Amino acid sequence: MTGRFDFSVTATSSKARRGVISTPRGQIRTPAFMPVGTAATVKAMMPDSVAATGADILLGNTYHLMLRPTAERIDRLGGLHRFMNWDKPILTDSGGFQVMSLADLRKLTEEGVTFRSHVDGSRHMLTPERSMEIQRLLGSDIVMCFDECPALPADRDRIAESMRLSMRWAARSREAFGDRPGHALFGIMQGGLERDLREESAEALKAIGFEGYAVGGLAVGEGQEAMFTCLDYAPDFLPADKPRYLMGVGKPDDIVGAVKRGIDMMDCVLPSRSGRTGQAFTRRGVVNIKNARHQDDPRPLDEHCTCPACTGYSRAYLHHVFRAKEIISSMLLTWHNLHYFQELMQDMRDAIEGDDFAGFEARFHAGRAEGDIEPL
Amino acid sequence: MTGRFDFSVTATSSKARRGVISTPRGQIRTPAFMPVGTAATVKAMMPDSVAATGADILLGNTYHLMLRPTAERIDRLGGLHRFMNWDKPILTDSGGFQVMSLADLRKLTEEGVTFRSHVDGSRHMLTPERSMEIQRLLGSDIVMCFDECPALPADRDRIAESMRLSMRWAARSREAFGDRPGHALFGIMQGGLERDLREESAEALKAIGFEGYAVGGLAVGEGQEAMFTCLDYAPDFLPADKPRYLMGVGKPDDIVGAVKRGIDMMDCVLPSRSGRTGQAFTRRGVVNIKNARHQDDPRPLDEHCTCPACTGYSRAYLHHVFRAKEIISSMLLTWHNLHYFQELMQDMRDAIEGDDFAGFEARFHAGRAEGDIEPL
Repeated sequence: MTGRFDFSVTATSSKARRGVISTPRGQIRTPAFMPVGTAATVKAMMPDSVAATGADILLGNTYHLMLRPTAERIDRLGGLHRFMNWDKPILTDSGGFQVMSLADLRKLTEEGVTFRSHVDGSRHMLTPERSMEIQRLLGSDIVMCFDECPALPADRDRIAESMRLSMRWAARSREAFGDRPGHALFGIMQGGLERDLREESAEALKAIGFEGYAVGGLAVGEGQEAMFTCLDYAPDFLPADKPRYLMGVGKPDDIVGAVKRGIDMMDCVLPSRSGRTGQAFTRRGVVNIKNARHQDDPRPLDEHCTCPACTGYSRAYLHHVFRAKEIISSMLLTWHNLHYFQELMQDMRDAIEGDDFAGFEARFHAGRAEGDIEPL
Repeated sequence: MTGRFDFSVTATSSKARRGVISTPRGQIRTPAFMPVGTAATVKAMMPDSVAATGADILLGNTYHLMLRPTAERIDRLGGLHRFMNWDKPILTDSGGFQVMSLADLRKLTEEGVTFRSHVDGSRHMLTPERSMEIQRLLGSDIVMCFDECPALPADRDRIAESMRLSMRWAARSREAFGDRPGHALFGIMQGGLERDLREESAEALKAIGFEGYAVGGLAVGEGQEAMFTCLDYAPDFLPADKPRYLMGVGKPDDIVGAVKRGIDMMDCVLPSRSGRTGQAFTRRGVVNIKNARHQDDPRPLDEHCTCPACTGYSRAYLHHVFRAKEIISSMLLTWHNLHYFQELMQDMRDAIEGDDFAGFEARFHAGRAEGDIEPL
C-alpha cells in the first residue's frame, strides 16, 4: 500500500460537514458511521455484507483482541485486516475505556492500568506505549491515544485530574506512535461537561498535534441533552481541518444531532447488538420483533428498505426465527440495522452536499413514531 | 407454476444412478443431498448461500413447523417457500419420526399419535390425514407418508407390527394426499434389518403406488455395516423408474456407500450441526477447529476448497471465532460443510456419468486421514 492519511471537508451546511478521509486502504466518506467488530468480527455478519451496507471503515477493540487471540498472534498471521478478511480501513480504540469497564482487579497509576483478563484471569498491563504497540501489531489504520475517563456524573476534581492524566498519556502515545506514513493517530479530548476543561484538553492536544481528534467521555451516562450541550461548543475547540470523532455514539437521533454539531465520525454497537436482541431501526422508529403483534404480519420491517431482511422476509418470519432463537434472526436484523445506519449517513451526506441539513433534520424527525411502530 | 413431477435416470455405474427429478419449482440433480431447514431456516445460513453451495432442494420438518409457527400461519403467509425465501423445491418429512423422538407424553394408536409439544406443552394429534394436510398447507413439493419406526436393535415382532401399521398409514396417506399435479407423495419402506419384511413392505407400497420411495428405519442405531447390508438388497425391491430416498443419512462415507447401492436422495443435519460444534468436513477427513493446534495455523481448512470459509480465512481465525463463541464461526463452518457435501455429490454425479463410480470411490477413500487431520 502507498499513499498517506488525509482529510478534506468538501461541503458544509451550517456546522454539519461533508468530507473525505483518504487512507492507503481506501476512502472514508464523512460523516461516517463505523460498525464495531469487537473480536475481529462484526457479530452475525460476513465482512462483504458489512461492506455492502455501505460501511467504509470498521472499529476493532484493542482490549478484546489483546486478550484473545492476542495482538502478537494477529501480527504473525498478517495483521487484523487479513485475519478478519476486511481490506478497508480499520480504527482501533486504545483499550483504555474498555479495560476500566470490563476488566477485573484493575489498578490505575501514572504509568498505566494493570488488570486481570475477564476471559481467563491472566494479568496484563496497558500503558500508552503498550497500547501503541498493540495497535501497530494489529495493523490499525487509525490509532487512538491511550486515555482514561470517568463515568458521568462525576465531580469536577475527578474529571480534571482524569483529563490531565489523559493529556500526559496523549503526549506519551504520540511519542510511542512514531513515524508511520499512511497511519493516523487521533488525540482524545476529555473534560466531561466542564466547558473550560474541554477547552484546556483541546489546547493540550493541539499543542501535541494529531491527524484527528476525538470527543471522548460522552455517551457515558450524561443523557442526550447534556451531550448535545457539550457538543454545541466542544467540536469548535478542535482544528477545523482535521476529522472529529465522537466515540461510542449512538442512537439515530444522537447521530443526527452530533453531525449537526460538526462531528465527522461515530461508532456504536447499537445496530449490531439490537439486531441480536430483536430490535430493528426504521425511519419510522424501532420495531420490537419479538412482540406477538408481528406473528401474522406479511409486511417487511420497512417497505422502503432495500436490505435482504426487508426484500426477502415478512415481519412474521422475523418474529418466528427470533422466537425460535434461530441464528438467521441475528443475521437478518443486524444486516437491516447496519443498512439503516449507513443509509442514514448517506442521507446526511447528501443533505450537506445540497446545503439542506435543516431540511433533512425536519424530515428525519417528522417521520418518526407513526402508525403501529414504537417510538424510538 | 406449471409442469409435473418427473424422474429419469440418465446414467448408471454399476448400481449407482445419475438422474434428474423435475418439479415445477426446478430440477433436482441426483444423487442429491438435501440440507435440513428444520424451523424454516438452514441454521446459520442465508437461503441464497445454501443455493450457492449447490443445493437443489431443502428438507423442512413437519413436526417443528406444525408447532411453531404452525402450518396454518405459514399457509396464510403464502406457504413455506415464500415464508423462508427459498423458491426451489422443498421436501417435508411427515412428522412421524420426530414426534416419536422429540415430543412428550406421546401415545400411539391405529389412528395416529397424540402428544404434547416440546415447545409449549400444548396437545396435538398427528395422523396420516393431518400430516397430509399440514404438508399441503406448507406447500411442500415432495410430501412424505406418515409412518412410524422403532429404533434399532428391536425385536422382529415389534419391527413387523410397526411396518404393517406404517403400510396401513401409507394407504391412508395416499388417499388423503389426493390429486395434486406437480407435487409428489413418497412412500416409506420399513422392516428394519429383516430382508423378508423389507420385501413385504416394498410390495405393499408398490401396490398403492407412489411418485418416489424412501428407505426408512435406517440410521437409527444399527451401525454402518448393518445399514450397508440392508442397502445391498432393499433398494432393489423398489421400482427402478422412481427416485429412492434414504432418510437421515449421513456421514460422507455413509453417503458414498448409499449412492453406490442405488440411492438417489439423502438428507442429514450433520453438515449444519457439525458446523455449529466446530467440526469441518474435508476431503482428507474431519478438522476439529476447537483444537489448540489450529490457533497459529495460517492455512485454510482445505486448500482446494472454494467456499468462503476457505478462500477468506485461516484455521487460526476459525479457531479464534469458535473459541470466542462468535456467530460467524457457525456461519463459516456450516457454509464450508454444506459446500463440501454438495461437492461430494457433484463428484459422484460426474463419476456416474463417466461410468467410473469405482474409481471415484477408490479416490475418496485413499484421500482420507492424511497428515494432521483426524480420521473421519
